[in-house]
Amino acid sequence: MSVSISLAELATTIGAELHGAESSTVVSGINSLVRATSQEVSFFSNRRYRAELLKTQAAAVIITAKDHTDCPVPVLLMNNPYLGYALAATLFNPPPVKPVGIHPTAWVSPQATLGKNGYIGAHAVIEANAILGDNVFIGAHCVVGEGVHVGADTQLIAQVTLCTGTQLGKRVVIQPGAVIGADGFGLANHQGEWIKVPQLGGVVVGDDVEIGANTTIDKGALEDTIIERGVKLDNQIQIAHNVHIGEHTAIAGCVGIAGSTRIGRYCMIAGGVGIVGHIEIVDHVHVTGGSIILQSILAPGVYSSGTPLELNHQWHRNYHRFKQLDEMAKRLTSLEKTLK
Amino acid sequence: MSVSISLAELATTIGAELHGAESSTVVSGINSLVRATSQEVSFFSNRRYRAELLKTQAAAVIITAKDHTDCPVPVLLMNNPYLGYALAATLFNPPPVKPVGIHPTAWVSPQATLGKNGYIGAHAVIEANAILGDNVFIGAHCVVGEGVHVGADTQLIAQVTLCTGTQLGKRVVIQPGAVIGADGFGLANHQGEWIKVPQLGGVVVGDDVEIGANTTIDKGALEDTIIERGVKLDNQIQIAHNVHIGEHTAIAGCVGIAGSTRIGRYCMIAGGVGIVGHIEIVDHVHVTGGSIILQSILAPGVYSSGTPLELNHQWHRNYHRFKQLDEMAKRLTSLEKTLK
Amino acid sequence: MSVSISLAELATTIGAELHGAESSTVVSGINSLVRATSQEVSFFSNRRYRAELLKTQAAAVIITAKDHTDCPVPVLLMNNPYLGYALAATLFNPPPVKPVGIHPTAWVSPQATLGKNGYIGAHAVIEANAILGDNVFIGAHCVVGEGVHVGADTQLIAQVTLCTGTQLGKRVVIQPGAVIGADGFGLANHQGEWIKVPQLGGVVVGDDVEIGANTTIDKGALEDTIIERGVKLDNQIQIAHNVHIGEHTAIAGCVGIAGSTRIGRYCMIAGGVGIVGHIEIVDHVHVTGGSIILQSILAPGVYSSGTPLELNHQWHRNYHRFKQLDEMAKRLTSLEKTLK
Repeated sequence: MSVSISLAELATTIGAELHGAESSTVVSGINSLVRATSQEVSFFSNRRYRAELLKTQAAAVIITAKDHTDCPVPVLLMNNPYLGYALAATLFNPPPVKPVGIHPTAWVSPQATLGKNGYIGAHAVIEANAILGDNVFIGAHCVVGEGVHVGADTQLIAQVTLCTGTQLGKRVVIQPGAVIGADGFGLANHQGEWIKVPQLGGVVVGDDVEIGANTTIDKGALEDTIIERGVKLDNQIQIAHNVHIGEHTAIAGCVGIAGSTRIGRYCMIAGGVGIVGHIEIVDHVHVTGGSIILQSILAPGVYSSGTPLELNHQWHRNYHRFKQLDEMAKRLTSLEKTLK
Repeated sequence: MSVSISLAELATTIGAELHGAESSTVVSGINSLVRATSQEVSFFSNRRYRAELLKTQAAAVIITAKDHTDCPVPVLLMNNPYLGYALAATLFNPPPVKPVGIHPTAWVSPQATLGKNGYIGAHAVIEANAILGDNVFIGAHCVVGEGVHVGADTQLIAQVTLCTGTQLGKRVVIQPGAVIGADGFGLANHQGEWIKVPQLGGVVVGDDVEIGANTTIDKGALEDTIIERGVKLDNQIQIAHNVHIGEHTAIAGCVGIAGSTRIGRYCMIAGGVGIVGHIEIVDHVHVTGGSIILQSILAPGVYSSGTPLELNHQWHRNYHRFKQLDEMAKRLTSLEKTLK
Repeated sequence: MSVSISLAELATTIGAELHGAESSTVVSGINSLVRATSQEVSFFSNRRYRAELLKTQAAAVIITAKDHTDCPVPVLLMNNPYLGYALAATLFNPPPVKPVGIHPTAWVSPQATLGKNGYIGAHAVIEANAILGDNVFIGAHCVVGEGVHVGADTQLIAQVTLCTGTQLGKRVVIQPGAVIGADGFGLANHQGEWIKVPQLGGVVVGDDVEIGANTTIDKGALEDTIIERGVKLDNQIQIAHNVHIGEHTAIAGCVGIAGSTRIGRYCMIAGGVGIVGHIEIVDHVHVTGGSIILQSILAPGVYSSGTPLELNHQWHRNYHRFKQLDEMAKRLTSLEKTLK
């Protein structure tokens, strides 16, 4: 399938202003600055790629007014070129038409309820009392557990497991290997041994949530684990029982969030961040990659932790001095007193 | 299924002392402080939730003698209220009766040996020479590899892979997406390229172990990887070849343990901890979240590493100074000498 | 199957020099220093295990000339004993003969193309237009998506997902639970909400690559994510869209690499390392465990970051002082000026 459109129409669709080109010039795709041909547009949203901008042969580049003077080809001006890219890429690459029906190798419980126009893929399993909305896509090898609810237009790409107690909203997308609703890690210590705490809550996932490959979200202990609408989760994230994540928060890969922590709305958590349990993070908090969060964050802002990468032999010297840091501070204070 | 019991009976069952209530009051569940009704009990084990305690409407709260004076409702006194919660929750929520038989879509090798009263779920695969004990539950989409042993009463929830060379004890529970017995990361360097070292050991998992969703435990190179009885592993843990984990140690999510490391008994490793290979950690070691362990730990205790989270612009200044730490220490010593 | 060989032949095969033994002595396996019998060889490549060397009863030990004086039994001298171990272990343990054919429970699209002498395992799914080379092994429960290419002699052990847009080279090995070609985490922000950026690239994996259990490699946004030949990836690694990893680089477990980062050839990245997006790491860089990389590395060498593990109460004091580090540096400079 191929989509062609004039630059004028494209400008209108993505909310940009066309400069320097015939408005009737037709384009049929979007590509990187390096690879875009004169029949494709490109975009510029990261100044690390300035050298590529100077050599691009794209029909036009989606760019901000601030950056556009360097651009050797026509421009589509807008404040958020990355948004323009997303909209143009969606326009040029409409999703494939989803199949409808039940694959002959799928197993659907007679007690399950399926919506209209859905698809159940090869070897998928739909257990008893599961309820699927209209236009749901269940890919190959997914397991939809007993009593699970799946909202309309939701897609499980492949190999997704939804355990009993899971409720998904509408237009949710879940990548392969994700596990939603496994037991939370609830243990009580009794004379050194561990007694399992039954995990009786569920997982409630709002509309328009995306969940990445091999991400895990555990069911709640008594109440539910909650992922509010519009949340975007990358790959290999671990979300423990009773975590609550607010609307439109985005979390990058390899983040771990311990039990009962509440994260606000519109937060951005970068890759590899670790977050302890039972704390609160308010709305509009950004945390940079690799940070460890051991206490609540009660004010919006950008937060970080960690130490710089160094050549190993230099690092080694500073690494060992860290153990003397408190003592050094006291010696410094003492010297200051002496000098006074 | 619904379980009702008098507060007096409940107190006896969980080992608590009832105060302030009619011993004949009947309760039928346990819930959080906020949600418990007058027909349910609750528990108080984390002082962060004091405000909720003051407003609870539970029939009784499981609580310590130390904390109980603030409680507005009757109390079930015991030293470890979290244990009381675990026991009460188990009492009120007995596990569902497991099905028995082989799902019509499962594939069981004629060379496999199944125990009594077990269940093999939808699309599960049991390869040749696998031996399953009595009452084993193999959920949908699990793969039990050639020659694998599974002890009695063990449960694989769904999508679990047990590779050749794996032996599971009794009453083991494995959550979805876990992979036990994949090849360890054994590589020898030869003129810059990597030669694979055959991984010839297995994985031996003791009785009463629980393994979380998407956790991976590699088979040993020559000897076995060993997880002793009573060990509890959360989600997304990586355990490399020839690691040995002692009895009743609990490890939280996203921990990575490199090859041949030995961890003692009764340890607690919090989330996101990284542990290098070929070291030893003795019994009764606790490590806090996000710590990196580069050397053996030879004495019991609580250990930590890492730096505090700060607003990004403040952190940035301290972050860069870390590279001068050794030099600062020397300058400080020099100043002290000058002043003497 | 059992392989027996004289020590003289073994020496020739692995490139070692035999000392102290009859060259006709026959051995039939390799084992650890502790467990090797007088019919087996062992190897010594890590000085942590010196005590075991002194007590070994192996027929001979593969060891360097430098270390061999301590060895109580005959030796096979070579510069890289770990390589000798890999070669000997491969010699004594030839891989099992792979089955050929299609398991009756597998589902293969009539539009897929299969090579010669391959195997499609139980419940595996091969979608339309997939093209598999000769001698390919597809284990139980693997999903090979529409249009995916799999090179000759490649093995997917079990439960592997290859999404549309994935191309694998020859002799690739993928462990269970790995997901190749899921959507990258591409999002554009529009008034606080996230708009999905279509992920239109693929994943190209070169010859002789190994990919560990539950590792995820996302497809590119516009161009491809590229893993060059000979790269070795351990378990639970996350590789984001448009990452490029050069030949013969080895990456240990739990590493996360954010989008568009380029890693050179012959690098070694230890476990738990986090790497931000849009940076470059040159050839021959080694990074030690748990390091966080926030900037490009433009020279070969060994790099590290992080702070030491301490007893919690000691750590706590130093941890809080980190926030004063920049101020301490300024006070130190000020003292130095005063003294001059």
